[in-house]
Amino acid sequence: MQTLWDYRYAQRTQRMKESAIRELLKFSERKDIISFAGGMPAPEIFPIDEFREACDKALREHGADCLQYGSTDGYLPLREMIAHQSTRYGINVTAENILPTSGSQQALDLIGRIFINPGDRILVESPTYLGAIQAWNAYGAEFIPVPFDQDGMDTKKLEESLRAGIKFIYVLPNFQNPTGVTLSYERRLHLIELAANYGVPIIEDDPYGQLRYEGEHLPAVVVLDSQTRSQETCYSGNVIYLSTFSKTLAPGIRLAWVIAPTEVIQKLILAKQGADLHTSTFNQISTYEVAKGGFLIEHVKLIRKVYRERRDVMLDTLEEHMPSCIKWTHPKGGLFLWATLPTNLDAKVIFNEALEKNVAFVPGAAFFAEGGGHNTMRLNFSNAKPEMINKGIGILAKVIKNHV
Amino acid sequence: MQTLWDYRYAQRTQRMKESAIRELLKFSERKDIISFAGGMPAPEIFPIDEFREACDKALREHGADCLQYGSTDGYLPLREMIAHQSTRYGINVTAENILPTSGSQQALDLIGRIFINPGDRILVESPTYLGAIQAWNAYGAEFIPVPFDQDGMDTKKLEESLRAGIKFIYVLPNFQNPTGVTLSYERRLHLIELAANYGVPIIEDDPYGQLRYEGEHLPAVVVLDSQTRSQETCYSGNVIYLSTFSKTLAPGIRLAWVIAPTEVIQKLILAKQGADLHTSTFNQISTYEVAKGGFLIEHVKLIRKVYRERRDVMLDTLEEHMPSCIKWTHPKGGLFLWATLPTNLDAKVIFNEALEKNVAFVPGAAFFAEGGGHNTMRLNFSNAKPEMINKGIGILAKVIKNHV
Repeated sequence: MQTLWDYRYAQRTQRMKESAIRELLKFSERKDIISFAGGMPAPEIFPIDEFREACDKALREHGADCLQYGSTDGYLPLREMIAHQSTRYGINVTAENILPTSGSQQALDLIGRIFINPGDRILVESPTYLGAIQAWNAYGAEFIPVPFDQDGMDTKKLEESLRAGIKFIYVLPNFQNPTGVTLSYERRLHLIELAANYGVPIIEDDPYGQLRYEGEHLPAVVVLDSQTRSQETCYSGNVIYLSTFSKTLAPGIRLAWVIAPTEVIQKLILAKQGADLHTSTFNQISTYEVAKGGFLIEHVKLIRKVYRERRDVMLDTLEEHMPSCIKWTHPKGGLFLWATLPTNLDAKVIFNEALEKNVAFVPGAAFFAEGGGHNTMRLNFSNAKPEMINKGIGILAKVIKNHV
Repeated sequence: MQTLWDYRYAQRTQRMKESAIRELLKFSERKDIISFAGGMPAPEIFPIDEFREACDKALREHGADCLQYGSTDGYLPLREMIAHQSTRYGINVTAENILPTSGSQQALDLIGRIFINPGDRILVESPTYLGAIQAWNAYGAEFIPVPFDQDGMDTKKLEESLRAGIKFIYVLPNFQNPTGVTLSYERRLHLIELAANYGVPIIEDDPYGQLRYEGEHLPAVVVLDSQTRSQETCYSGNVIYLSTFSKTLAPGIRLAWVIAPTEVIQKLILAKQGADLHTSTFNQISTYEVAKGGFLIEHVKLIRKVYRERRDVMLDTLEEHMPSCIKWTHPKGGLFLWATLPTNLDAKVIFNEALEKNVAFVPGAAFFAEGGGHNTMRLNFSNAKPEMINKGIGILAKVIKNHV
């Protein structure tokens, strides 16, 4: 039905599409579903008691400051804590390089807002994170997919695209969403070299970096970039780095951060002022109270233990039940693995049949900015308990076997 | 200094300006300042204990749901409560007409995102709310100021502008920010009639509607619009209505809402998904726990009592100390009054001299979308205690007397 509102929408509104994931999250809210669909943390290990204590402490000790307007820049002790914790991973920055955001989705939005003109080209892994496509679609971005294999973005195939004029490169180097794949050390170096040669900045999105279950930690792209520039304390490199408390503490508090040169932070602050004035002071103060001291470090150890077990159960059950024509990645961390069906199979068909048997996942096509991936699927292993993973993968394998 | 980031910014970033208010809020954080500058609630009456209890209850009873991802649509019991409370003011809507946002600033941003194409004209009161100008500047809006007097926007002067092609009309009918002026009943009706005739929608921003200290409540524009259309229960009118918990509970939780036809809500949800995925589940649940039952109604009574006293002290002290060439509004509610200096005086000069004596306010020019107002000033009376209002206005009057 045509209504009086229809002709009033802006052009960009036509480009906004219902996210496949959002649709799927509706299913995963159903308690009778075994969901490998969302990217949700395990609720059983949320630090509920710690948050209760922290909220109580924040409101007792900071009183009205928790409930009053705050500055767009963010709560200084939180920014100092993030800066301090970042140095543990070799990211040498100060509070001036850090902007707390209302979740990483807002960081992606603000980056789009300050950098993207309609028609600007963004280099993305193929497949890449759906939330970034969604955020930057609103600013009229065009996405140039870079081929991807078990070592991440294939940097050998990057140079040709870089010559074509690129606004920035978007990369998720650790346990990428959706594939679980990690960008190799050599490719990180190659990426930095190429980006510097062509004067193209890099957006490094790292929500899962701390959730490694095997192998050695690889230095972040932002760290390698700084080393190349022989910078040690003052951050002014070619990389904007994003991370979040959503995967290490709780996504419901909507608290993430951007690390960038101070001049970029200043532009992001201006953009954020127009977008939501500031991130909840209460959430910043209470999260600071939860995360300060040693709690976060200990809690991440627990998350690693729990998710590693769930990943192993999923890998084992896939091995046990799936027909040999199905391939999947072996993620060394993070929340997802990625399965590939024979090319004659459509993951959406499998999705519909699996859903009838109360098992959900995300058909992979949604993660390809420019189409493709009809026979791929993203499987989340952090949210369901081991016995449900076992059961769910068994059901999924049966559905697939009917087609191969 | 030109840096490698400078040429990468989008065109819209050039339009983003540091808000005068944000600069001023930095002063008002200084404890030695008597600030009439910000729009901050009185911290002494924040319901701190109620929030402590509500957070505790929310985390005990809803546990992991507080900390998990939520849907972009918002927490259903909160939306139902807002719908229910809206009916008390004659706004007959259901939860489907309501979208919780991360503060009203986000509501303004999302409205800009779905409606404004670059060059679109927005009719605004002159002066108008700075946050709206800031939000919509990012989308390339042009602002058409409508003359304004003690009864609000002068609707007799509206028709000519409406003929020129207008995307929407933005109005703050109750105790407007920055002037404290209320749009008269007759003009509300006239505004609705003209908007309907020209097919132009209205954005009604009503953060202060419940904070009336004298006179009778006037029906909201959205209510009068529905009555004109003989609609009673199903909302599909010409007005989008915004309100917030920032002034009745606490701004630090960043929780506000949009009321709109369901089709507009659906577009706003899509836009919000790309902007910040969803508003904190924890804040939605804990605010629901604070506001449900009768607490909010009782608390608003307390706010009215405290702010009314502060308004009266400010009006009395202005009367007592200010030279007769200074005029000011007599707001019947809200947080602000508006003073006008002789035209040969520049409020910025007064601002600088007052600041040296530790008194701050906002020079009014910032509130004029298209320039003007050099001799005006916005004075907030909600934040400072009565004795400080008395002292501060005395100092301000001395500064002004040196110039007249």
